[in-house]
Amino acid sequence: MKHLFDLRLDAVKAAYQNGSTTPRQLIAALREQAAALNPEFHLFIHLLTTDELEPYLAALDGKTPAELPLYGVPFAIKDNIDLAGIPTTAACPAFAYVPAQSATLVEQLLALGAVPLGKTNLDQFATGLNGTRSPYGECRNSVHPDYPSGGSSAGSSLAVALGLASFALGTDTAGSGRVPAALNNLIGLKASKGLLSTAGVVPACRTLDCVTYFTASAAEASQLLALTAKLDARDAYSRSNPQWNDGSAFGAVRPGFRFGVPKQLEFLGCAESPALFAAALEQLEAMGGEAIEIDFAPFLEAARLLYEGPWVAERYSVAGDLIEAQPDAVLPVIKAVLQQAPGTTAVQLFRAQYRLQALKAICDQIMADLDCVLTPAYPRPVTLAELHAEPVKRNSDLGYYTNFMNMLDYAAVAVPAGSMGNGLPWGVTLFGRAFTDHYLLSLADGLQRQQQLPLTGERALAPSAPSSAARNDRARLVVCGAHLDGLPLNWQLQQRGATLVQATQSSADYRLYALAGGPPYRPGMLRVAEGGVAIAVEVWELPSSELGSFLSGIPAPLGLGKVQLADGQWLSGFICEPYGLQSAEDISHFGGWRAYMQSTQ
Amino acid sequence: MKHLFDLRLDAVKAAYQNGSTTPRQLIAALREQAAALNPEFHLFIHLLTTDELEPYLAALDGKTPAELPLYGVPFAIKDNIDLAGIPTTAACPAFAYVPAQSATLVEQLLALGAVPLGKTNLDQFATGLNGTRSPYGECRNSVHPDYPSGGSSAGSSLAVALGLASFALGTDTAGSGRVPAALNNLIGLKASKGLLSTAGVVPACRTLDCVTYFTASAAEASQLLALTAKLDARDAYSRSNPQWNDGSAFGAVRPGFRFGVPKQLEFLGCAESPALFAAALEQLEAMGGEAIEIDFAPFLEAARLLYEGPWVAERYSVAGDLIEAQPDAVLPVIKAVLQQAPGTTAVQLFRAQYRLQALKAICDQIMADLDCVLTPAYPRPVTLAELHAEPVKRNSDLGYYTNFMNMLDYAAVAVPAGSMGNGLPWGVTLFGRAFTDHYLLSLADGLQRQQQLPLTGERALAPSAPSSAARNDRARLVVCGAHLDGLPLNWQLQQRGATLVQATQSSADYRLYALAGGPPYRPGMLRVAEGGVAIAVEVWELPSSELGSFLSGIPAPLGLGKVQLADGQWLSGFICEPYGLQSAEDISHFGGWRAYMQSTQ
Repeated sequence: MKHLFDLRLDAVKAAYQNGSTTPRQLIAALREQAAALNPEFHLFIHLLTTDELEPYLAALDGKTPAELPLYGVPFAIKDNIDLAGIPTTAACPAFAYVPAQSATLVEQLLALGAVPLGKTNLDQFATGLNGTRSPYGECRNSVHPDYPSGGSSAGSSLAVALGLASFALGTDTAGSGRVPAALNNLIGLKASKGLLSTAGVVPACRTLDCVTYFTASAAEASQLLALTAKLDARDAYSRSNPQWNDGSAFGAVRPGFRFGVPKQLEFLGCAESPALFAAALEQLEAMGGEAIEIDFAPFLEAARLLYEGPWVAERYSVAGDLIEAQPDAVLPVIKAVLQQAPGTTAVQLFRAQYRLQALKAICDQIMADLDCVLTPAYPRPVTLAELHAEPVKRNSDLGYYTNFMNMLDYAAVAVPAGSMGNGLPWGVTLFGRAFTDHYLLSLADGLQRQQQLPLTGERALAPSAPSSAARNDRARLVVCGAHLDGLPLNWQLQQRGATLVQATQSSADYRLYALAGGPPYRPGMLRVAEGGVAIAVEVWELPSSELGSFLSGIPAPLGLGKVQLADGQWLSGFICEPYGLQSAEDISHFGGWRAYMQSTQ
Repeated sequence: MKHLFDLRLDAVKAAYQNGSTTPRQLIAALREQAAALNPEFHLFIHLLTTDELEPYLAALDGKTPAELPLYGVPFAIKDNIDLAGIPTTAACPAFAYVPAQSATLVEQLLALGAVPLGKTNLDQFATGLNGTRSPYGECRNSVHPDYPSGGSSAGSSLAVALGLASFALGTDTAGSGRVPAALNNLIGLKASKGLLSTAGVVPACRTLDCVTYFTASAAEASQLLALTAKLDARDAYSRSNPQWNDGSAFGAVRPGFRFGVPKQLEFLGCAESPALFAAALEQLEAMGGEAIEIDFAPFLEAARLLYEGPWVAERYSVAGDLIEAQPDAVLPVIKAVLQQAPGTTAVQLFRAQYRLQALKAICDQIMADLDCVLTPAYPRPVTLAELHAEPVKRNSDLGYYTNFMNMLDYAAVAVPAGSMGNGLPWGVTLFGRAFTDHYLLSLADGLQRQQQLPLTGERALAPSAPSSAARNDRARLVVCGAHLDGLPLNWQLQQRGATLVQATQSSADYRLYALAGGPPYRPGMLRVAEGGVAIAVEVWELPSSELGSFLSGIPAPLGLGKVQLADGQWLSGFICEPYGLQSAEDISHFGGWRAYMQSTQ
């Protein structure tokens, strides 16, 4: 469906800057369009009135798009996230309350200039993955009327997919931000737990809940994450990102990454999904990725713990009082899910938590050797008719590849990946270690460009790839001396979990010196304007978080800077200050430290 | 009490190397002495027989002290930690089993050459802090017969304090490795959760349990930790240390550290403890520390959750089946503690876990600004008579300063701090963020040297301080350009949680250059052999784990190496490769980047 406006962040900013529209004009037009679409899609529980919108528009008066990163950007809010003065229902009228304060994340977005269009429909208490479990009406798919929007963040996905908002906030405990993204040709970012504040969000499972972004493109999700990921004193589960928190980690993905693919792929008999998945896999390979088959059994066992184990008690701790007081206030399907909870004991929960920890250790071991994992977003889409016939089973089908993610503390992005023969969007998920968010989004961006799929609204992605390089949570380090494999200081790398990536040479721009002092004996590698030679080096990879303690142990005149390799790329590596070379011996003619050391024996 | 041998690690090694004894001679003598002391102290549940010792001694044949770091070092094992072929009782005969495999940590120690002397007495199921709760007899204090050894690692503390072992393994869930250390003039290291494997340990609370080391000196504990902290695939709760895992973080503490002291100090009416604590505080100040008063209420609330909340269900999940099958097999006092557990629900546990998370967020905020916290090890010692009269209350008294530690995921060290008028040892605890273990031990070492207390066995600590510098989990960074406070790249430090420590000058050995290119405009600071000047710089402090991503963002020709300050100390900071200075302007005469930038405006 063609959208009225190009609502991508850059397009909105450009439209305001060139004067082709104003926030008041754009928001009014979107509000009108939303009101027109709502009877069919039921995406808004509460569409803000003109009066309710006015304070947000008035706040932009006298400001410019240059001052506010999200100046006049329309967004939608899942109705389990607080917007001050507007009821929060969690799709349960009897549960509704009017918050005095907005959720922290909403406050951040408002301060950046974004304008909230309304509160969106959801599976009640965010318990569901399909979008039909709401007294405010079923949410049908944005493209195909026989299919659901997906849920629980049903209305939020539709708000972006129908061209009513630049982005929308969802939540994702078991897959609620990823399933509807994939069903509607959207990016669904379930960032690492704790990066986006959940203060002011109705909990589903407090230990697992995440707020998510729906966007047309991965680049926009990275921008939004960089703007709003922040430690929040209102949220005890909030965490700061030890890697990059500013979007500078987003960029072009370097070839040579390794992605896991489940040995046990499940498509539940779908005739089309296997080929769609194979195509996405090939596109990742075309980007320079290497597919590694992994055992998916421990991930699936962790997934089963979420609904078959005591975590249901977390959901009960939110809605249980209401169910006990007013049994009819809650949908029967939700009650059916929650009613097992009150009998669960603390001993059972501890035992389940031990099992989860054991599974996490196994899964972490599998992930240790990978940059990410690629899975389908769901085995196959399910129709509205199937959901009506078997509401619990078909809902579970949609969560096959999503339920384990927060249990195991991984970051994940749902990415569009073609469509079925009937036009229904199909998608994949990229997931990785906590705090690899911007790297996953970089991969998602590459996949979107590789696919040349039309974005939602039939707009295409600009062909230009990001100019900066994507950054993972692993750092590569060029070593040229005592840290080489097997040499006396190599243990400093090994004990930090470093692995040897490559033995290669520097560009032909260096001189190598044997420094005075030792043992351990150490060389200094100096970049020179002329007269340089290529030096034998090794590239090691280690967790970025370990690089700081490694750096602290390096004595003057050595340090870590950027070293150029023979293939032209610049990587972090050992450099040397020239004052340290006064009594050093120029050993460049040996071509490397190892050859020099052998000559001295 | 004078010991038969000086069993400190270095002394044992020296004795073997100079031939004054052999492992067989030493172990036989210690075994004889242990058998003689056991009827009074009840410290061993199982003392290894000569036959049982033989394989460990035989494994040393043909090896030398130079080859094995713990060659022939005698140690004792708390009897809730497995030693292959010897019963593990957890001080409950009905629970006993004979493990086929040793605990991972025991395996590591054996492989390093250490020799196990026996399995030591404990409060049953490690539930207790006093050492009297065992069917194998009460453990009296090593110094004063009217007092308990402390527990639950009762026998392990006595093994070291009585001069029978160089070190001993305890466990510590609520304080079991710290209380008996302080009561017996020992270092008790409760390392960060997960650093020392708990595989093969009878769980108390699996999510909280730690194995501990008892040693005479902090330096020995650091050596043992460095030798054995290792990710263990057998232990799902195992974690690797993102800082230093090799003991190179242990050393002389730099003045200027900040230590928290509870505003709410509790001594339970003890006449002597306040002065002993004040003395320890003054000694830390004399080492260059600054005492900062902190609110201790959230720490104490977390402590109360451990025994008043659902965590008792963890203990019940271990011993519950036995209690139900054979009620008389478990001591009445243990049963009394555990019997509240079966009724606790999963909903209650989740709510308690939420509360704990909220408390942790508050406590972490308090800790963020500190290098460590100093508390008494206990408000006051309690006598055996008091324990007999009020076994639960007096036991709780001992845990006032210890119960919260693992709940909040902190590292802690109990340190001797003088003695009461009656000769009973008294102690303090130093605690800090997870993975600050070696730094805490460095502080403990400083405190031991400052106090000039006799070590256990009336031996004194060698007066020489460590020659290397202690390393905390925070790194200091010297910046000289666009990262200075208020300048364009300073946000890269701020968003990583960095704080400004000091505005100062470099030593007078540098030239400053304005590099070509920009914005952002950047200088290069080059150390020179002659003609250098002092440059205005700032010292910032940030978590070491964030330094890696910061380094990755630094473009050539800049890097991070070591920079000398005007006061002579070398810190990590910006350096510059000389090839980058070809078209740069020498701006040294401005004395700093800020002055230069002002001149260009």
